[in-house]
Amino acid sequence: MRIALDAMGGDHAPREIVAGAVRAAQELPGLTRLILVGDEQSISRELDSFKHVPDCLTVLHASEVIEMHEKPAQAIRRKKDSSIARAIDLVKDGEADAVVSAGHTGAMVAGATLKLRRLKGVSRPAIAAVLPTENRPLVLVDAGANPECDARLFTEFAIMGSVYSGLIFKQSAPIVGLLSIGEEELKGTEKTREAFDYLSKAPLNFRGNVEGHDVFKGETDVIVCDGFTGNIVLKTSESVAGAIMFWLKRELSQTPMRKLGAALARGGLVSMKERLDPESYGGALLLGVNGVCVITHGASSSNAIFHAVRVAGESLEHQLNTHIVEQLSLLEPEAATL
Amino acid sequence: MRIALDAMGGDHAPREIVAGAVRAAQELPGLTRLILVGDEQSISRELDSFKHVPDCLTVLHASEVIEMHEKPAQAIRRKKDSSIARAIDLVKDGEADAVVSAGHTGAMVAGATLKLRRLKGVSRPAIAAVLPTENRPLVLVDAGANPECDARLFTEFAIMGSVYSGLIFKQSAPIVGLLSIGEEELKGTEKTREAFDYLSKAPLNFRGNVEGHDVFKGETDVIVCDGFTGNIVLKTSESVAGAIMFWLKRELSQTPMRKLGAALARGGLVSMKERLDPESYGGALLLGVNGVCVITHGASSSNAIFHAVRVAGESLEHQLNTHIVEQLSLLEPEAATL
Repeated sequence: MRIALDAMGGDHAPREIVAGAVRAAQELPGLTRLILVGDEQSISRELDSFKHVPDCLTVLHASEVIEMHEKPAQAIRRKKDSSIARAIDLVKDGEADAVVSAGHTGAMVAGATLKLRRLKGVSRPAIAAVLPTENRPLVLVDAGANPECDARLFTEFAIMGSVYSGLIFKQSAPIVGLLSIGEEELKGTEKTREAFDYLSKAPLNFRGNVEGHDVFKGETDVIVCDGFTGNIVLKTSESVAGAIMFWLKRELSQTPMRKLGAALARGGLVSMKERLDPESYGGALLLGVNGVCVITHGASSSNAIFHAVRVAGESLEHQLNTHIVEQLSLLEPEAATL
Repeated sequence: MRIALDAMGGDHAPREIVAGAVRAAQELPGLTRLILVGDEQSISRELDSFKHVPDCLTVLHASEVIEMHEKPAQAIRRKKDSSIARAIDLVKDGEADAVVSAGHTGAMVAGATLKLRRLKGVSRPAIAAVLPTENRPLVLVDAGANPECDARLFTEFAIMGSVYSGLIFKQSAPIVGLLSIGEEELKGTEKTREAFDYLSKAPLNFRGNVEGHDVFKGETDVIVCDGFTGNIVLKTSESVAGAIMFWLKRELSQTPMRKLGAALARGGLVSMKERLDPESYGGALLLGVNGVCVITHGASSSNAIFHAVRVAGESLEHQLNTHIVEQLSLLEPEAATL
């Protein structure tokens, strides 16, 4: 498989991107080509620091970078030679199977939707983020691609999320929940009540509403919501986890005895930290476009990039998109037309 | 001050409610009367277990209880002799100044709005929840009273939240943020963009959009959003914190060495736990009704009840409602009419 990697995206580009790419090229056996897209000089400089660069790693020059403050669709149209646009073009032109970026999320969504087009049966592509819970990974769709969206889209989100959970996390008949503010069908907003109705009729293992309290309980495999709510849930969760780890560190370094205690319990604390680390989950997938598209955190380290490339590879290996199209075709035609 | 306390609300009623009431009656000097409302027999039985019951503690019999699955407005209308309805009636009839309940949130909101009426200048009462952040308490409004609401209401939420933050947490010129999915004014939904506009023009210390990432950073005193989003943020945050403490406990008990470490660092771990404990924050206030109304967690222990009564007392002492009406009167008449 061939993966295009935006070398200029994220806070630590290109250094961490290149380092993650080198590791991926060394460790992921199915990878036949990993194309670093971006400023050739900067990328080469980073590559020079590695003794051995695997042959499958190549560079494609792109002279521009889409900055975080730019408007997504406009930036994609204007900066034709940006690393994101060029990386997506590689998939569009059949020179790569997947694209990975830690850059501008909106530009990735706009670029992939415009250039790669939607899969058959998909009205709007959606972002699937993965969250750790007490006993299994949770897929949250939509985590930000569609801040405002029709309740009917929730069915597509749920189907795409279920296929993802089934293929990547091996959940058979993934349990789907609708994010709302009460367990009963009638709780929530007009939109969630309408979505409840659509979800009940779809070929899904739909279990009804879930509340904020339930998100991290690990009783649901897929949670659906609009992109506004999903983005806030995702970022708030990261914010809480960050604050807790900050407090914990401060508390545990306040007296010599606590410091000694923390040193003895170090294994447990490290394993906690790893579990909470969003990087090991490989970023979020943009589901519903004709090509595999992985978007990782702006703060991505080389480790996050490695896992993002790994997830892109797994999605290709399991033919995620073929399964999505298949499952969406089972929807009633009336429900499928938006 | 005189406070009515729903003795039948919450998972651990009436035992924990009564225990919290006894402690409040003993420790809060300004309390002249604390009225336990609910089944007289059960309350008396609990009171019997205390050697000394302060004189200010009295009981008002109410024969019914509003159950969690009941529809709020309907339940309030039908169960006229429920503990929630009777407790609110005490405020309505001038026999109490504030009401506290760990019971049905929706019934408290509906009951207080119907019976106590709104304050002058308030279109819709809103729930203000308090969250711990890295360096100061954060007031989140609306945390669930108005799942669907007009963008213009955000200004009222912000003003009420600012008064609360100013009086109770002594923040001068509290910093207000609008919860959205990007820092720029244009990010978000039509509703948040409209709210941004209203907030910019209001007599507030408005700093613009805040994202989920910012919630626990401690750079904002008041965050406003609709009740759907607010409820999900609040409950998700509690869910994350709960999951993390669960993992931490499990990790730290896995080997004898980790156990020893945890024992040595115990002070730090306990102080972490306390900091994350929503109970010490005294529950949420229903702002905008003509009377002080505190709603605490269904899982409230006696400690939570004590703090809820304390917060009700502080709100009375600082004449929260008088200040809210004053601040709302500063709004442009055009902005104030909804």
